[in-house]
Amino acid sequence: MGVIVQKFGGTSVADAEKIHRAARRAIRAKLEGKQVVMVVSAMGKTTDKLVALAQDVSPHPPKREMDMLLTTGEQVTIALMAMAIHSVGHEAISFTGGQVGMITDASHSKARIKKIDADRIREHLDAGRIAIVAGFQGITEDGAITTLGRGGSDTTAVALAAALNAEVCEIYTDVDGVYTTDPRIVPQARKLDTISYDEMLEMASLGAGVMHSRAIEFGKKYNVPIHVRSSLTDANGTMILAETSDMEEIVVRGAALKRDLARVVLRGVPNKMGVAAQVFARIAKHNIMVDDIIQNVYREHNIANIGFTTNASEAMEAQAVCDDLARELGIESVELDEKVAKVSVVGIGMKTHSGVAAKMFNALAEAKVNIENISTSEIVISCIVRLDDAEKALQTIHDVFELDK
Amino acid sequence: MGVIVQKFGGTSVADAEKIHRAARRAIRAKLEGKQVVMVVSAMGKTTDKLVALAQDVSPHPPKREMDMLLTTGEQVTIALMAMAIHSVGHEAISFTGGQVGMITDASHSKARIKKIDADRIREHLDAGRIAIVAGFQGITEDGAITTLGRGGSDTTAVALAAALNAEVCEIYTDVDGVYTTDPRIVPQARKLDTISYDEMLEMASLGAGVMHSRAIEFGKKYNVPIHVRSSLTDANGTMILAETSDMEEIVVRGAALKRDLARVVLRGVPNKMGVAAQVFARIAKHNIMVDDIIQNVYREHNIANIGFTTNASEAMEAQAVCDDLARELGIESVELDEKVAKVSVVGIGMKTHSGVAAKMFNALAEAKVNIENISTSEIVISCIVRLDDAEKALQTIHDVFELDK
Repeated sequence: MGVIVQKFGGTSVADAEKIHRAARRAIRAKLEGKQVVMVVSAMGKTTDKLVALAQDVSPHPPKREMDMLLTTGEQVTIALMAMAIHSVGHEAISFTGGQVGMITDASHSKARIKKIDADRIREHLDAGRIAIVAGFQGITEDGAITTLGRGGSDTTAVALAAALNAEVCEIYTDVDGVYTTDPRIVPQARKLDTISYDEMLEMASLGAGVMHSRAIEFGKKYNVPIHVRSSLTDANGTMILAETSDMEEIVVRGAALKRDLARVVLRGVPNKMGVAAQVFARIAKHNIMVDDIIQNVYREHNIANIGFTTNASEAMEAQAVCDDLARELGIESVELDEKVAKVSVVGIGMKTHSGVAAKMFNALAEAKVNIENISTSEIVISCIVRLDDAEKALQTIHDVFELDK
Repeated sequence: MGVIVQKFGGTSVADAEKIHRAARRAIRAKLEGKQVVMVVSAMGKTTDKLVALAQDVSPHPPKREMDMLLTTGEQVTIALMAMAIHSVGHEAISFTGGQVGMITDASHSKARIKKIDADRIREHLDAGRIAIVAGFQGITEDGAITTLGRGGSDTTAVALAAALNAEVCEIYTDVDGVYTTDPRIVPQARKLDTISYDEMLEMASLGAGVMHSRAIEFGKKYNVPIHVRSSLTDANGTMILAETSDMEEIVVRGAALKRDLARVVLRGVPNKMGVAAQVFARIAKHNIMVDDIIQNVYREHNIANIGFTTNASEAMEAQAVCDDLARELGIESVELDEKVAKVSVVGIGMKTHSGVAAKMFNALAEAKVNIENISTSEIVISCIVRLDDAEKALQTIHDVFELDK
């Protein structure tokens, strides 16, 4: 009998009514002949409330104890979900991460799955029960409770689907699939029927927030079909799959806008061997994300300007680190520009089609959007633009590649 | 180094401030050279809230899933308590019931402890950490999460104290010890310095609610000194100990009043062999508590009246069962009297002193309290009285045995 994994996020289990709705969906799949595993998150704002409780007690709680605290959120949901299924006459059994054999390393708050002992869950599936698993959590070989970090419930679901060789891992959420771009910005955005793992990974890293990268990587590694769909309707959502030659026909699958960026520019950097390396080594030491580096050398003055983009949340720290460097290395000035954004197009078809970049740049030029920097990878082309131009740029790209068709 | 177990109930950990206060107490014991184990309950009204959540989802939730749900309450507290201790620079580590090796049978909602594997906790104590254990919860050999039922956190604490051969198990609560009787009824009630396990067991079964019987039984079985004391002050509370010959000098240790009783009287029961047995067998089958049976036989009419007391909460069910019996056995009528109460005196000194019962009956007679029934055991004498007389009866007994001295 085929196994299906259904993951329900916090908004899909936020109250008793929504829990019953999710339960009905699982029961329906069961009645259609599937063996059903549900993976659930903490209800609604539970995790935020637990974090606030911890902050009341301690400003810097140990990560081990945060994991002990936060995992109670999912444990509440699995118990209630099992009760909901029982209340309508079906068999269900709940499991914490530890009980289901989700073995992780000991990196509390961002643990990595080492292995899954799926025997226990399989035994209950074979006995006709719906298995309900707490997302986001695992256990070390020593029995310490861990969490998988952001998007952890998705990772739990996809990893279980891989371990159980499931037909599909369904991710139920409050949107009805993956879109060509953010429909709040581009009204013509269209829901995709399919997208490849690699395209989805790029979209996720560019801020398309439907799923977390790690879960998609798991899906890619173990070739688990992932179905992102709405918990409110029965309509099909978007299948995330291994790429096929058919998929390459589409040159651009989607477009993304990342707004929470800032740019740091170091002006008048002495043009000596190794200075740039020193700059980025120091920034890396502070775990600051660096993207889109530009360096302009002015040989006549024997100086260079070095600019890079970073996350807005890390901008202040990046500036402080660069100010220190400026004093040490004799750099003239450090400027912080918080008014930048990145627009990107993503598509595996780019591998076999040329001219995508030129088409994008022309379209932006015609729309009078100034491109401050360009970066490309095999399936992505990104431009840094002024924040004020960002939405227009995204709309322009969506139009020129006819993503609404 | 001596081990000390400190148990904090729900009201003693109800908010961040109270958690810090409990943490300071544990740290002080640590600094005084003890190895400290804390056992904590769920914060304040958490358990009630979780029960309400379950009721929202299902009217009759499976017990396994209720245990899964309710154990999150204590898990939240252990994490926060560990954070509180860390925040002031001391080492602490939290454990769920499963992690601490609290192995129980599989009777969900009222599991019995089978064994405790104390090695893990001892290792951390030896490393200088304060160990924080979730009360009320255990785990089966198969890894299912269980709860120990009412008063379960006390049981956890005393059982751990036994397993670790602790010097003392301190029960921190919102009263400052065990009293000769309820001070809300008898203002002269006096806090006891010591009480024997057997006396405390009788007091508990008579409704003196400081500790649950099972925890006291555990203490008696493994000879764990239990110190019941206030979480708000440093004053000594009451030590519950094995009895000594000294303790027998005190004839009456305390007096109790149980108000939530009802009496069922079956009138005109055919006076035939085995009818009474049939009545009580049927009542037992419905798990209804029966106490203080009186049977009056009227040989001239070849009938009997049979009366018994039961808990008020079970009175309606008891009456329904008796109504059925009345039809089947030809009993004339069934009467329910909800206006009765039981006053008792408790003391191991009664074993070696006579005249206690006579003194009690005389005193009640002088106070014009009518005694409806009397029952005695080795260390208890109880009288059933009218509910209207109950408080006067308790005051009278407290006075005549000079319990305020």
